Amino acid sequence: MSSSNHQSAVTVLGLGPMGRALAGSFLDAGVRTTVWNRTPGRDLELVQRGAVSARSAEEAVAASGLTVVCVVNYDAADAVLRRGPVTDALKGRTVVNLTADVPDRARDTAAWAAAHGVRYLDGAIMTPATTIGTPAAVFILSGPKELHEEHRSVLEALGGTHTHLGEDIGRAAAYDIALLDVFWTAMAGYAHALAVAGAEGVTARELAPFAKGIGAILPPLFEEFAQDVDSGSFSGELNPITSAVSSMAHIVHASEAHGIDAGVMRAAEGLARRTIALGHGTDGFIRIAEVLGRR
Amino acid sequence: MSSSNHQSAVTVLGLGPMGRALAGSFLDAGVRTTVWNRTPGRDLELVQRGAVSARSAEEAVAASGLTVVCVVNYDAADAVLRRGPVTDALKGRTVVNLTADVPDRARDTAAWAAAHGVRYLDGAIMTPATTIGTPAAVFILSGPKELHEEHRSVLEALGGTHTHLGEDIGRAAAYDIALLDVFWTAMAGYAHALAVAGAEGVTARELAPFAKGIGAILPPLFEEFAQDVDSGSFSGELNPITSAVSSMAHIVHASEAHGIDAGVMRAAEGLARRTIALGHGTDGFIRIAEVLGRR
Repeated sequence: MSSSNHQSAVTVLGLGPMGRALAGSFLDAGVRTTVWNRTPGRDLELVQRGAVSARSAEEAVAASGLTVVCVVNYDAADAVLRRGPVTDALKGRTVVNLTADVPDRARDTAAWAAAHGVRYLDGAIMTPATTIGTPAAVFILSGPKELHEEHRSVLEALGGTHTHLGEDIGRAAAYDIALLDVFWTAMAGYAHALAVAGAEGVTARELAPFAKGIGAILPPLFEEFAQDVDSGSFSGELNPITSAVSSMAHIVHASEAHGIDAGVMRAAEGLARRTIALGHGTDGFIRIAEVLGRR
Repeated sequence: MSSSNHQSAVTVLGLGPMGRALAGSFLDAGVRTTVWNRTPGRDLELVQRGAVSARSAEEAVAASGLTVVCVVNYDAADAVLRRGPVTDALKGRTVVNLTADVPDRARDTAAWAAAHGVRYLDGAIMTPATTIGTPAAVFILSGPKELHEEHRSVLEALGGTHTHLGEDIGRAAAYDIALLDVFWTAMAGYAHALAVAGAEGVTARELAPFAKGIGAILPPLFEEFAQDVDSGSFSGELNPITSAVSSMAHIVHASEAHGIDAGVMRAAEGLARRTIALGHGTDGFIRIAEVLGRR
């Protein structure tokens, strides 16, 4: 039992893979942990490890000053939190909502919380459930700074890094959406690449070491392109968007020649061609970000 | 001047950013380097560094036993190589074509080469021009193994790693297409993410450190998913594709709420929903690769 957390208490609502990882990590750190899940039976292993199983959501939130919510989306979070008995029990207590959804839902939840005397932080977890409790976990939070400071030591029992992004309650969700956009788009590209490679007789295991190499060149390019976007300069001297379009057309062609749907790449190629048509053919690929964001 | 390469000679056809990087790297390694480009004037700096500027493509290829070609695509390569005087001059010599295109074009070029007594290797460069001559450069090659062995020491003057993928001449292009698929799809995702973040008041520089974190979690997932695809088991226990679809829908919604085109993510979401509709909702996301590849 960790000395710094031996008098802390937390409630975890939602016991999917991520919720279970969060509760397990709190338990490992010696935090008194109460758990509840809409569908019963998900807490058996956690109870064996010392968690308190609440019979209802209102009993769960009443057990701790801090409730961490991690469910599938804000519809699910609302269905739990916005029932009268739960809302009443939360009065004066803190909710940290680590559920993923769009920024407007975070803002709406903050408004509900303010109207009911619930103290509210919004957040997101940017790494898989397997990272929880390890240095690799990445948590982002937004909302009142002092509320984050108050609960910081308990939240840090979850391991990893915890970044407070600002007072705007929608900020964590905005980062979350943007980062998941990078993640799922890249994953869709990888799934497609494996299908095309397979049609060419290249196994996934053969391709993987090289795909990992591509993964490794992304972070420095992300950094470089971010500077281009913020400065509004998009030099394509070494790699103009016209050259990217040539690659993209090859990919679509090779994919469709094997009867493999190339809709994702077709959409990406369309953005690039639209950017060129707007007169940016000598710019770098990331000019697309500016074109997409135009009003 | 490198002792191992002081009697070697190479011709570089095509002096775009990549071709210039290749020629410069050969020069740095002490290889006698002849250069030619369709549009004149691109070789000035290379000539100052010791390159021989050929007056024609046929003069260029006649100057060396090995010609490296790096132009925009195989239409451009054909326009240079398949002119009578050039083809004649190449007889008995080796062409290494590092131009990017689809596997069928590599196979077609190999057939042309065989018909004209030209020794032929196909290849691709998987890293940016700035990596040429450094340990970060990644070259992949396919075609006759002994031809690769013969020219290996000169090619290694380009730095980095050189992997011979097999005798099937289309293999390097197949890897190239698949890897560029991962790269450009991920880049399209990043461009879109920057646009959405910007609409939410998050600057590119604020997002970049976290985007780099997403980039860092991709390689181990690429490895894990490759094993799933080759083994045909797609466990979604920790992260089912239904949960991915929920994220993807949030991204589309947040993007379109700002008037930002979400076509790439809509296409990716469509693939995921189609995979679920086929009965794979409890599988992991990478089941998409298997569904895409079905005949």
